[in-house]
Amino acid sequence: MPAHDQPPTAADLGLMQDSRPSPERLVTLANWQEPPFNRWAFQHFRELVPTATIARGEGPVTELPHAPRDIDSLRFASVSGAPTTVARMLTATYTDALLVLHRGAIVAERYFNGMTASTPHLLQSVSKSITGTVAGILIERGALDPAALVSDYVPDLAGTSFAGATLRQVLDMRTGTKFSEEYTDLKAEIRQYEQVIGWRPRTDPQPTDDLWSYICALSNARPHGAPFEYRSILTDLLGWILECAGGARYAELLSRELWARLGAEHDAEIAVDGHGHPVADGGISVTLRDLGRFGQAYLQGGFFNGSQIVPGAWVRDCWQGDDEAQAAFAASPQAARYPGGMYRNQWWVIDPVSGVYLASGIHGQSVFVHLPSETVVVKLSTWPEALDLRFAEEHVRAFEAIAAAL
Amino acid sequence: MPAHDQPPTAADLGLMQDSRPSPERLVTLANWQEPPFNRWAFQHFRELVPTATIARGEGPVTELPHAPRDIDSLRFASVSGAPTTVARMLTATYTDALLVLHRGAIVAERYFNGMTASTPHLLQSVSKSITGTVAGILIERGALDPAALVSDYVPDLAGTSFAGATLRQVLDMRTGTKFSEEYTDLKAEIRQYEQVIGWRPRTDPQPTDDLWSYICALSNARPHGAPFEYRSILTDLLGWILECAGGARYAELLSRELWARLGAEHDAEIAVDGHGHPVADGGISVTLRDLGRFGQAYLQGGFFNGSQIVPGAWVRDCWQGDDEAQAAFAASPQAARYPGGMYRNQWWVIDPVSGVYLASGIHGQSVFVHLPSETVVVKLSTWPEALDLRFAEEHVRAFEAIAAAL
Repeated sequence: MPAHDQPPTAADLGLMQDSRPSPERLVTLANWQEPPFNRWAFQHFRELVPTATIARGEGPVTELPHAPRDIDSLRFASVSGAPTTVARMLTATYTDALLVLHRGAIVAERYFNGMTASTPHLLQSVSKSITGTVAGILIERGALDPAALVSDYVPDLAGTSFAGATLRQVLDMRTGTKFSEEYTDLKAEIRQYEQVIGWRPRTDPQPTDDLWSYICALSNARPHGAPFEYRSILTDLLGWILECAGGARYAELLSRELWARLGAEHDAEIAVDGHGHPVADGGISVTLRDLGRFGQAYLQGGFFNGSQIVPGAWVRDCWQGDDEAQAAFAASPQAARYPGGMYRNQWWVIDPVSGVYLASGIHGQSVFVHLPSETVVVKLSTWPEALDLRFAEEHVRAFEAIAAAL
Repeated sequence: MPAHDQPPTAADLGLMQDSRPSPERLVTLANWQEPPFNRWAFQHFRELVPTATIARGEGPVTELPHAPRDIDSLRFASVSGAPTTVARMLTATYTDALLVLHRGAIVAERYFNGMTASTPHLLQSVSKSITGTVAGILIERGALDPAALVSDYVPDLAGTSFAGATLRQVLDMRTGTKFSEEYTDLKAEIRQYEQVIGWRPRTDPQPTDDLWSYICALSNARPHGAPFEYRSILTDLLGWILECAGGARYAELLSRELWARLGAEHDAEIAVDGHGHPVADGGISVTLRDLGRFGQAYLQGGFFNGSQIVPGAWVRDCWQGDDEAQAAFAASPQAARYPGGMYRNQWWVIDPVSGVYLASGIHGQSVFVHLPSETVVVKLSTWPEALDLRFAEEHVRAFEAIAAAL
């Protein structure tokens, strides 16, 4: 693929390069999610919204050994039908960084668009799988029970639309909550929600700036326990549940229970709203290798850095799920995306038999875990569109080709 | 002093301890500067506003040796006239952290109110002395000239009230700019300014969210070259000048020129406005020991961590100044605070003969450099009032007593 087909970098575009950028080079709260401004914004998210530190703690870094392989020239059948290579896929899908781990060793580690090994990159909904992990840890400890009502943990929910909803329904996105995630529909709940959490300029009349109040005011479109429907707000609710059950603010809880134990190299960070509430569904930023450590912990059944960081039963449940979760997914509009798969514990399951599953975020964030080949692929990107189904499928095709070659 | 005289900590007050704090425990953009909310906010500033990372880089940490001494029982004459001790002063003045360095070794290092060695604490106007330091570095390199017009570096200033102002006048706060810093006057420019930079909820009609536009729209109350008058906005302008002369955004410039070279232990951070412009006058947060390294670099004439990080001539000029700066200070309303002193290069000079000077920020931030005794004292605090002249004097009395005892 010739060099001129490469998408321009933030530096090529001059984004935020000058002391007073011209409007077409200025990244603000109003445009950061749009192309090409997201090319800069996803690596500088703390410069746009308030964030809390997820401390890595004082422990040693878990070193990842190196076992380099040429993956660029790997061939696979593109979603377009034509043969392509991993290198072409990386260029075509606005890649900011790629990490391939095989049996725990770094096979490939690539940075693009100005990103470096110490750059935190916005994860969008990969954050959900991290938030779910903290839930799994608290469940193992008995501080949470998937069968319990969410109002058992968050009493404020008792008189709301979440009365009667279980933690399991939240984990698998099966409450009856009315919340449209259609990014292209300007009237969808997700658009109002973005103002609530401070990710978009607030209009007049201004919505609440308190995410918990917003959650309490939601309504239901159907009974709880319905088929799977992807709604980010349910992971924000999970963050609130975790704070109540874990007895700490989410950033502190995530640091204590997961980030510090992983032996992460860098502090991570999470966006917070105007009341300090965590945007647990999409607001986490981490560095590439630290996200690789997270994926590798899952590949290893939760045992990492010398201890069982994530409960083994939880990890297995994330990719095996159960018949009910599979049926709930099969009955959903998303079933065609991963036939025979499911959405379980905040992960997308491709193959619940052999164990192939992924964390996925809009604009091209992925943690792909492939048990049969003992491979983890992490890809951070800034696609022009939030949800580009062709790019999403191209990712998975490339990841499976990499896994097959290792 | 009995324990019940200690000011309550953020934890005592329950500030931001629960998943849904009650209003009297909730810290927001609207109340964070007020007591007691500042007890929490100054250690969590990134959770309230957008911030940029000031990277420490990849180099080794400059270790500070330890030479502990009992300073708590040191006696001195309080501003009230009664004898007191350093320990009582620390309690009475809402201390968050204290570091005493003597000949480069840590004599005392104390943390209060939940602060730790890795907590970044908001510096307020101690930030000015850091920003001035970058100016000193660029001046030595020939990239800046104190005698030049500020519009030589920032062409956008040519048609504004800053036409004709020199960099020297900005460094010593002697332009004619109209900008009231009276924190208790709700109509003072500083209050509008807080909305511009996003440090206070924006009212309707909203002011610009672009600090550079705000600067360009200011007017003069008198000719440039007037007596000293403390105006924070001039340091923000200095930040803009630095970006233009240094060819990089301020956070990157500060990292490259100073923070990475100091061998800092932690990344620092700086608040940015809605256009990514740096709040160079007061928005920097750093850890206690890193601020000690900064002060120690000044004590050592700019030579630190094995090289001349800050030009020796600049450092000397910061505390010696010149006759004109002394006269400009003597003619100002602040002259009584430091008789025979001055404001020079973004530092407050107490004694320009022997070399006693300090960086100072509202609510009790200080870096005190005492050349004769080879002492640096760093104190981070959360006074209830922005500018408490009794507390400010108590600080200096205590610092001088510590210096005298070492």
